[in-house]
Amino acid sequence: MDTKTQEIVQAGINTVRVLAADAVQKANSGHPGTPMSLAPMGHVLWTSAMRYNAKSPHWPNRDRFILSAGHACMLQYAYLYLTGYEDITMDDIKQFRQLHSKTAGHPEYGLLAGIEVTTGPLGQGFAHGVGMAIGQQYLASRYNKPGYDIFDYRIYAICSDGDLMEGVSAEAASLAGHLKLGNIIYLYDDNHISIEGDTAIAFNEDVAKRFEAYGWHVQVLPDGNDIAAIQDALEKAKAETTRPSLIKVRTHIAYGSPNKVDTAGAHGAPLGADEVKLVKQGFGFDPEVSFYVADDVLQYYHEAGSRGAKDEAAWNELYAKWKAAFPDLAKEYETLAAGNLPDGWKDKLPTYKVADNPKGVATRKASGETLNAIADALPTLIGGSADLAPSTDTNLKKYPSFNFDNHGGRNFHFGIREHAMGAALNGMALTKGIIPFGATFLMFSEYMRPPIRLAAIMKIRPLFVYTHDSIGLGEDGTTHQPIEQLAALRVIPNITVIRPADANETAQAWRVALEHKDGPVVLVFTRQNLAVIDQDKYAKATNLEKGAYILADADKTPDVILMATGSEVDLIVKAQEKLKAEGIGARIVSFPSWELFEKQDAAYKESVFPKNVRKRLAVEAGASMGWHKWVTDEGDTITVDRFGESAPAEQIFAEFGFTVDNVVKKAKALLGK
Amino acid sequence: MDTKTQEIVQAGINTVRVLAADAVQKANSGHPGTPMSLAPMGHVLWTSAMRYNAKSPHWPNRDRFILSAGHACMLQYAYLYLTGYEDITMDDIKQFRQLHSKTAGHPEYGLLAGIEVTTGPLGQGFAHGVGMAIGQQYLASRYNKPGYDIFDYRIYAICSDGDLMEGVSAEAASLAGHLKLGNIIYLYDDNHISIEGDTAIAFNEDVAKRFEAYGWHVQVLPDGNDIAAIQDALEKAKAETTRPSLIKVRTHIAYGSPNKVDTAGAHGAPLGADEVKLVKQGFGFDPEVSFYVADDVLQYYHEAGSRGAKDEAAWNELYAKWKAAFPDLAKEYETLAAGNLPDGWKDKLPTYKVADNPKGVATRKASGETLNAIADALPTLIGGSADLAPSTDTNLKKYPSFNFDNHGGRNFHFGIREHAMGAALNGMALTKGIIPFGATFLMFSEYMRPPIRLAAIMKIRPLFVYTHDSIGLGEDGTTHQPIEQLAALRVIPNITVIRPADANETAQAWRVALEHKDGPVVLVFTRQNLAVIDQDKYAKATNLEKGAYILADADKTPDVILMATGSEVDLIVKAQEKLKAEGIGARIVSFPSWELFEKQDAAYKESVFPKNVRKRLAVEAGASMGWHKWVTDEGDTITVDRFGESAPAEQIFAEFGFTVDNVVKKAKALLGK
Repeated sequence: MDTKTQEIVQAGINTVRVLAADAVQKANSGHPGTPMSLAPMGHVLWTSAMRYNAKSPHWPNRDRFILSAGHACMLQYAYLYLTGYEDITMDDIKQFRQLHSKTAGHPEYGLLAGIEVTTGPLGQGFAHGVGMAIGQQYLASRYNKPGYDIFDYRIYAICSDGDLMEGVSAEAASLAGHLKLGNIIYLYDDNHISIEGDTAIAFNEDVAKRFEAYGWHVQVLPDGNDIAAIQDALEKAKAETTRPSLIKVRTHIAYGSPNKVDTAGAHGAPLGADEVKLVKQGFGFDPEVSFYVADDVLQYYHEAGSRGAKDEAAWNELYAKWKAAFPDLAKEYETLAAGNLPDGWKDKLPTYKVADNPKGVATRKASGETLNAIADALPTLIGGSADLAPSTDTNLKKYPSFNFDNHGGRNFHFGIREHAMGAALNGMALTKGIIPFGATFLMFSEYMRPPIRLAAIMKIRPLFVYTHDSIGLGEDGTTHQPIEQLAALRVIPNITVIRPADANETAQAWRVALEHKDGPVVLVFTRQNLAVIDQDKYAKATNLEKGAYILADADKTPDVILMATGSEVDLIVKAQEKLKAEGIGARIVSFPSWELFEKQDAAYKESVFPKNVRKRLAVEAGASMGWHKWVTDEGDTITVDRFGESAPAEQIFAEFGFTVDNVVKKAKALLGK
Repeated sequence: MDTKTQEIVQAGINTVRVLAADAVQKANSGHPGTPMSLAPMGHVLWTSAMRYNAKSPHWPNRDRFILSAGHACMLQYAYLYLTGYEDITMDDIKQFRQLHSKTAGHPEYGLLAGIEVTTGPLGQGFAHGVGMAIGQQYLASRYNKPGYDIFDYRIYAICSDGDLMEGVSAEAASLAGHLKLGNIIYLYDDNHISIEGDTAIAFNEDVAKRFEAYGWHVQVLPDGNDIAAIQDALEKAKAETTRPSLIKVRTHIAYGSPNKVDTAGAHGAPLGADEVKLVKQGFGFDPEVSFYVADDVLQYYHEAGSRGAKDEAAWNELYAKWKAAFPDLAKEYETLAAGNLPDGWKDKLPTYKVADNPKGVATRKASGETLNAIADALPTLIGGSADLAPSTDTNLKKYPSFNFDNHGGRNFHFGIREHAMGAALNGMALTKGIIPFGATFLMFSEYMRPPIRLAAIMKIRPLFVYTHDSIGLGEDGTTHQPIEQLAALRVIPNITVIRPADANETAQAWRVALEHKDGPVVLVFTRQNLAVIDQDKYAKATNLEKGAYILADADKTPDVILMATGSEVDLIVKAQEKLKAEGIGARIVSFPSWELFEKQDAAYKESVFPKNVRKRLAVEAGASMGWHKWVTDEGDTITVDRFGESAPAEQIFAEFGFTVDNVVKKAKALLGK
């Protein structure tokens, strides 16, 4: 590098620092210190290490960058702007953290091209990256052919001490080490500062040794301003293809700020107008000018940002040849990457008849049969469980496991790491073409709510499969019996929760989930057998797509509406008969999904729940919260607002009032009988 | 040990194995394999390592035992029975996993003396133990005096590969290593088997190296049947007083089962009647006899279980002398350990006047002031935050930090480890006398729901402090703005959520929380300033204890009831005035806690929300779920059922309809105006 270039590089790095200080100052809110310390690292990533084309941010084989330390987002916004991403302008940077701007307080997927994943809640970016690395490896295994390395991109991230303190990153790191995800390259910003002060007040473990214990390739750099060392370490990390890489880099928060460097004060608050001036003076910038970028700096980064154009052109050529050589595979990939599904897959969905299933079918079992029935038709439907596959019935029986020695397998052993599983599923869902699912007991959705929420924010579509969905789980007892989990999931915006009533609704739930596009879908299944609802006598299970539908009506205007979800639908089916025998006309409504029903038009809603029929009873083995809306002031619920019991399921159901007789009794009580 | 004793010991260990196999078989459900492999470890713990007196299970200075691998609970039930805990009989063991039995499917605190903590969700027992170790150390720091080691007990646990895969244990282990909690001794059951098969399919990290990286003292034992080696390792662990200890023990699941040993099949299902017989034959037991305990075995364990009687007697003597020497300290401890609070503490609660606070007060700030005002009066009120103390305002300013070099400090730096913080708070709350609190942003309650739920199940009372409680958090944006969190917390059984409306309600919220006894309390505070409600003009904030109360009424029967919580109460206060000017009579209700209100009698409830006033509007910057019940079919809500925005708070509130004008408009709409 000649002297002139060296000067431009240093000016460029300092430009990023000053832009961060300026933007935070103007917003009067934000995190200036971290972008200032990370600017050299970012420089190496965006000018040499990463393969991307700023003018084509969606190129499928681009390297992915994740700012796990999302609060440092001005770093990413600055480099996206400087390297020429067209989606961001200097005006956007000036609008940092303002209403409806692209430059949100933490990076948001979908707001701005170049943001690969929404980050902010610490640990999530780190763990989502593991899923993105899995996604790349699966694409490579399925679509790469000798001479055609269509997918060989890497996953880069910058993470902070906070990311590494969070349990989700520990789980994800252990999983990534186990799986030998050599396509991961993470930089750890070891700045010794957290909000409460020196990280030593809470965090003095040996991070490098810990990551070696996970099976990672670890490098330690003493100086975060040493560009050559960072570059060298990144090259070594690229050369390491069987272990994920962690590069621990000692940095100094708010580098360049004479009074705030190495202090917690620079973490989450503006430096102050005077201090920003001192920063500028220190770097030889005009202290009176804000948001300044020298022409040669901009040109330098624009060139760096378009380096990848030739890579992309070469890739396009390779892709065209690959497509010609493997037209079926290419069609498959393009269909799936566009978010569509191959023709005919729905024909594989199983159906169930009462006569063939006299003892009923657990919906987890019907789910397993559905998954296996459609697995051949959906080659990128991949997933697994958090060490509960035999219980969740999520094994794709014809296919091998995705493990360290086979990145083309379809069954994942996530280990007893529900939180990392959730984040990994999101990362996989962010990989266009991949349809990921992950399973555990409904109770353990509690361990994975942060990634579920991020999926909802990003409107991506991982499939969360939860079995053992109620007190019907039985003997494992209180700690394992979900009570409040259905409500706690339903309340998340953009989510779709489906709790099917029998085997046929289960197959339909998978259909709806796979066709769903905007947001995560939660599928909720029973441990215990449920009677198959007679498709000749009652309304068809295909109605599940409407969220709620009349299974069977009263002969005249109903006296009462009985509604239920999942395992409790059988109770209202039987109660309807008993009530009829007593001269009471009940409409019965299967209500597998509140969210799907909310999407129906007013006329349909009125047709199911007419305003003039207000004697309504909801039956669900879960918390009552939220049901009031559906049963109205004149209705009632049979629900569970206390913790469960350890006992055989039938006994618990009876103890908690989930019997046909109790449904009949409550329905009659509503009618004053 | 003589030959005869050796024989009894071996028979005893095998008795535990057979009891476990029998109980699981009779229940036709459960986990036989782990108790069978852990029986020797349990033997050493209950016969020599641990200091306890089976006849006095609540002796304050007993060693604590945690079965983090809660599914192995038959191990614990067997040893509690054999060592003579009077709370459990052989009939209880025969009732394993049956309705209302003490021997639940996982160990439940409160059901059975000797169970120190409810376990089952993996990782939690491990992390709760860290809190219990903190509790012991704080008690020792405060109450031990030279020559009076009143509290010197240890925390023992058995944990499984599942416990060690969970992120919460990683966080807790890092914290424990950092804090140098030398009173922790954990045994790791390294049995190589999980539900999906060999743990190597998901977990091949170097656990010992990882724990060394955390600063733990690690020992590795190759043979889980080698009693002498286990005993020796436990003694070495006791000798290590500055580092927590992990003893990794290679075991064989279902040891003694000829066809199931070392297989996943022995993990979570009965062995089968024939296999149980083979187990008995292999151990020289009569295959036709179930639940058999030889007299000499029972006698041996009874003696072991009463070893501690002399320790307890000596301790009682020491305690009496200590009490005589330090009567004030003893009174303090006994008051707090009984769950009571010292006289006069309530007099310290601050009050706020409008005139003194013209700009209002953020409830997080009022909370900080309250905490500091009462800190002197409540010497075991200890807590901290997950690296957000300056933001959550939870620092006890006069007191030092609890850190590795000071276990008497009162301010905790939990690090960016919300999940471990939650579990540690529970462990601290399980330490009689300690009143723990922990703080983070409301959003990050999502990272700590599993321990919140366990606190609710156990009905223990940690205090969870959550600030930045709504979209009012502002610029940090979508990922940090709570929407569904209030509802998702309220729906947990046994929980009490309080969201005070101003500084005075905040002080009262702390009062109610500290007086609360059965279950966790969640305190929800704002980032932004809130107007102080004039205590001369409106109803007194002491009414907060009722959950909801009339702040101010209409002059006659109200046309409409406006209700709100927290920061939104100010909107209904102002709306009431505007409506009055338009001739509309509104009752305004401050509604800080649904759960406290639900506990009031019917007459009080009717007095606040009369059945005949059904035009009601609820205003809360959170999800609408659950509000329908309070506003009735004829009411409406101003709530948030979408994700937030990154922008200054005032702009977001306006964008989402939280303005006085919108409240007025919606209220009038209800009245058809």
